[in-house]
Amino acid sequence: MEIYNSLSRKKETFEPLHEGRAGIYVCGPTVYGDPHLGHARSAITFDILARYFRHKGYKVRYVRNITDVGHLENDADAGEDKIAKKARLEALEPMEVAQYYTNRYHDCMRLLNVLPPSIEPHASGHIIEQIEMVKKIIAHGFAYETNGSVYFDVEKYNHTHAYGKLSGRILDDMQTSARDLDGQRDKRHPADFALWKKAAPEHIMRWASPWSDGFPGWHLECSAMSTKYLGEQFDIHGGGLDLIFPHHECEIAQSVAAQGCEAARYWMHNNMITLNGQKMGKSLGNFITLDEMFAGSHNLLAQAYSPMTVRFFMLQAHYRSPLDFSNEALQAAEKGMKRLFEAIQTLHKITPAGGGEDPTVEGFIQKTYAALDDDLNTPIAVAHLFDAVRFVNAVNDGKDTLTATGKAKLQQLFDGVLTDTLGIASEQQQTGNTAILHGLMNMTLEARNLAKANKDWAASDKIRQQLSDLGITVKDTKDGTVWSLE
Amino acid sequence: MEIYNSLSRKKETFEPLHEGRAGIYVCGPTVYGDPHLGHARSAITFDILARYFRHKGYKVRYVRNITDVGHLENDADAGEDKIAKKARLEALEPMEVAQYYTNRYHDCMRLLNVLPPSIEPHASGHIIEQIEMVKKIIAHGFAYETNGSVYFDVEKYNHTHAYGKLSGRILDDMQTSARDLDGQRDKRHPADFALWKKAAPEHIMRWASPWSDGFPGWHLECSAMSTKYLGEQFDIHGGGLDLIFPHHECEIAQSVAAQGCEAARYWMHNNMITLNGQKMGKSLGNFITLDEMFAGSHNLLAQAYSPMTVRFFMLQAHYRSPLDFSNEALQAAEKGMKRLFEAIQTLHKITPAGGGEDPTVEGFIQKTYAALDDDLNTPIAVAHLFDAVRFVNAVNDGKDTLTATGKAKLQQLFDGVLTDTLGIASEQQQTGNTAILHGLMNMTLEARNLAKANKDWAASDKIRQQLSDLGITVKDTKDGTVWSLE
Repeated sequence: MEIYNSLSRKKETFEPLHEGRAGIYVCGPTVYGDPHLGHARSAITFDILARYFRHKGYKVRYVRNITDVGHLENDADAGEDKIAKKARLEALEPMEVAQYYTNRYHDCMRLLNVLPPSIEPHASGHIIEQIEMVKKIIAHGFAYETNGSVYFDVEKYNHTHAYGKLSGRILDDMQTSARDLDGQRDKRHPADFALWKKAAPEHIMRWASPWSDGFPGWHLECSAMSTKYLGEQFDIHGGGLDLIFPHHECEIAQSVAAQGCEAARYWMHNNMITLNGQKMGKSLGNFITLDEMFAGSHNLLAQAYSPMTVRFFMLQAHYRSPLDFSNEALQAAEKGMKRLFEAIQTLHKITPAGGGEDPTVEGFIQKTYAALDDDLNTPIAVAHLFDAVRFVNAVNDGKDTLTATGKAKLQQLFDGVLTDTLGIASEQQQTGNTAILHGLMNMTLEARNLAKANKDWAASDKIRQQLSDLGITVKDTKDGTVWSLE
Repeated sequence: MEIYNSLSRKKETFEPLHEGRAGIYVCGPTVYGDPHLGHARSAITFDILARYFRHKGYKVRYVRNITDVGHLENDADAGEDKIAKKARLEALEPMEVAQYYTNRYHDCMRLLNVLPPSIEPHASGHIIEQIEMVKKIIAHGFAYETNGSVYFDVEKYNHTHAYGKLSGRILDDMQTSARDLDGQRDKRHPADFALWKKAAPEHIMRWASPWSDGFPGWHLECSAMSTKYLGEQFDIHGGGLDLIFPHHECEIAQSVAAQGCEAARYWMHNNMITLNGQKMGKSLGNFITLDEMFAGSHNLLAQAYSPMTVRFFMLQAHYRSPLDFSNEALQAAEKGMKRLFEAIQTLHKITPAGGGEDPTVEGFIQKTYAALDDDLNTPIAVAHLFDAVRFVNAVNDGKDTLTATGKAKLQQLFDGVLTDTLGIASEQQQTGNTAILHGLMNMTLEARNLAKANKDWAASDKIRQQLSDLGITVKDTKDGTVWSLE
């Protein structure tokens, strides 16, 4: 399998550190806001990566963190004493906010059929590990303390190592763009970044450390937690493209400074989402949460889009390409997904012609897996599945033939790629009432067929119309009646 | 509202520490095994408590922890060096096991309609807070270090405080029953308990501390996390009856030793579950997991029981009474719940007779809430709801009357108590395909009515039989046809 490595800027053959195993770390959400389309794209991209490795027989340990060290503040005007005296129960508790948004994130991931990671560590739960890492970096001479805060010495690190190797940035260029933000006066160099920050009195989340009551710098958690659960070296580190700098660049520097070697061997980054060609942003009024997407409750949305439609739509762009959301594109994805499900239903009913291998099917299998092996090229893989759909429909129309082995292998292809790897489940597969729904549909279609046999067109049309009102489409084929949920 | 306080061994009027707020801490699961009926009873009991407080207008902060500090061990025979050299990814990772069972627990809780707590802290994520608490207890003279482990000095504590006040045990009696377990030789008194344990070489989960590389004693996490999120004093501490000693007894001692006052003001304990009159236990072969319960896949189960049936069944015993699971009792609960849902459907269709208050309905409301206010007496509350069911059916049969105000208030009672407080949702409310299911049922019943109008009894009987095969019961009433899922 080839993977595009952001570090080398080229596709490389994936060679696991440990035969048959894959260790993957992905930057998860900051849980102080509603999950949105950006969260979904990253989660789905790496969900498919982990699923595909498992499908190929790898034993996968997939770690995706929760960034819950938040920067909520008490009312500073109230004064430190007053805050300290305020009862715990009446005070804002950051973990209550973090739990709320963590739950919402999990709910959305479940709807999107994103499997839970093997381990989902919380930043706030790994303060000791982060403090230990800061101690190591200080001991190795790559960090210094000023006024209770600890900063990474980027300039010193850059003398012997290449700070900027992932992002392609040059340290000298960074100086000019650095602004005089909080803590800048404590730093030796504007590009230095905090490993530990002394907490201001109004800062709520804080822990004791050798340097001050404070909190870890944002970049530190991922270095500490990936090392803890995957080892000092591991296979793949993933995240959104926007994290390359400074977050992932700083992670590399931290690992090298603490342990003398880089941690991740392959860096994978998913590209961003645009809406009608525009960057998504709260200030632009085109920031769509996943809840709004699923409910159709944003004025840019013409309708509600099911989680599966959103997932399927995302697969139709390569993860390294930008992805533009528009009603037209989503509606097309919805229709395409329906065609796929219908073809799978049709395939079940096809009577094969003879035995033996089916060269057409072998071709679909070879091309679909080749696409996935080529840096997870899901749009090409999906295109080959659509070729298979056309083939199935042609066979069903008597214009082509399919052997028994070919039928079984084609069903395996849909199961293995569409369901297991791409994680696309039909609505029927997702709901618990499948059996009842199917049973009722069988009864209803039976009644319609009876009406047709009796040439009672009014009755049969009425049933079709009623089903259509419920969002159920009925299609008559030579092999019987096929139905699908819209 | 009256609450039975295990500490005073009597019912007390609940007086919140902070007007309009309730702070609740409940001992959650140890996530190294499948969730079973015992987990469900505790979670449901305190879910109803939190729901009822919210229903009464309280602002609730409900904290339920995850005990994930596990005692997994590496293969000691391999020798410490070999273990240290083993690649992280190939080694057993306790957090991977903990995550797996945490996910399973969450899945079961969701099925049981147990709402997520406000904060769900992990023991492994609060090592710093636990170390700080040990330091305080040592500083106050109630703990001592031996060979890298720290023990709570129960005898010394008992000189000035009452160790055993919750469980009613006497320290002198405990000496005789103490066995010579691991660490006993390090203790000054057999009843002393560990606050911090030095980790043996093969012990995987370990953190640096002032005393040793080790892990916190089990009792400590709940004291540290309840204090962190609810304050040094808070309203209610809950858990299973089996936790009174030693866990909760030790929690009280830890809080008093660390902060000079007890933390929880009310201690609430749910009773245990028996199966066909026997204690549940793995060695007895009658240990039923929730998954087995929902799938009917244990040889003691005559059928599968839906999560709602299990929940409804649990409400029919008071939380402080033992609860015996048997197929007969569960089947009766299933039938009873169906009758409740049917009556709610019936109530919707009733045409009220006149306006004004309805004294019968006022009586139901008063008695149902009185039962809940009496130490969450859910079986009595449910009994009053069943009285309301009988009344609804009598009104529907023309044997009694109901005013418009009475109808609205009765609907509010079912919504507020059955749905919001007791958390009982019909299968239809729980599934996403509600609208489609109802639409299809309307079509099917319409077809059946047409057949009956045409005196085509064969056709109408066939529909009834087909629905019955799908687990759907149809009942003809004078107001039309009512259906329900089995």
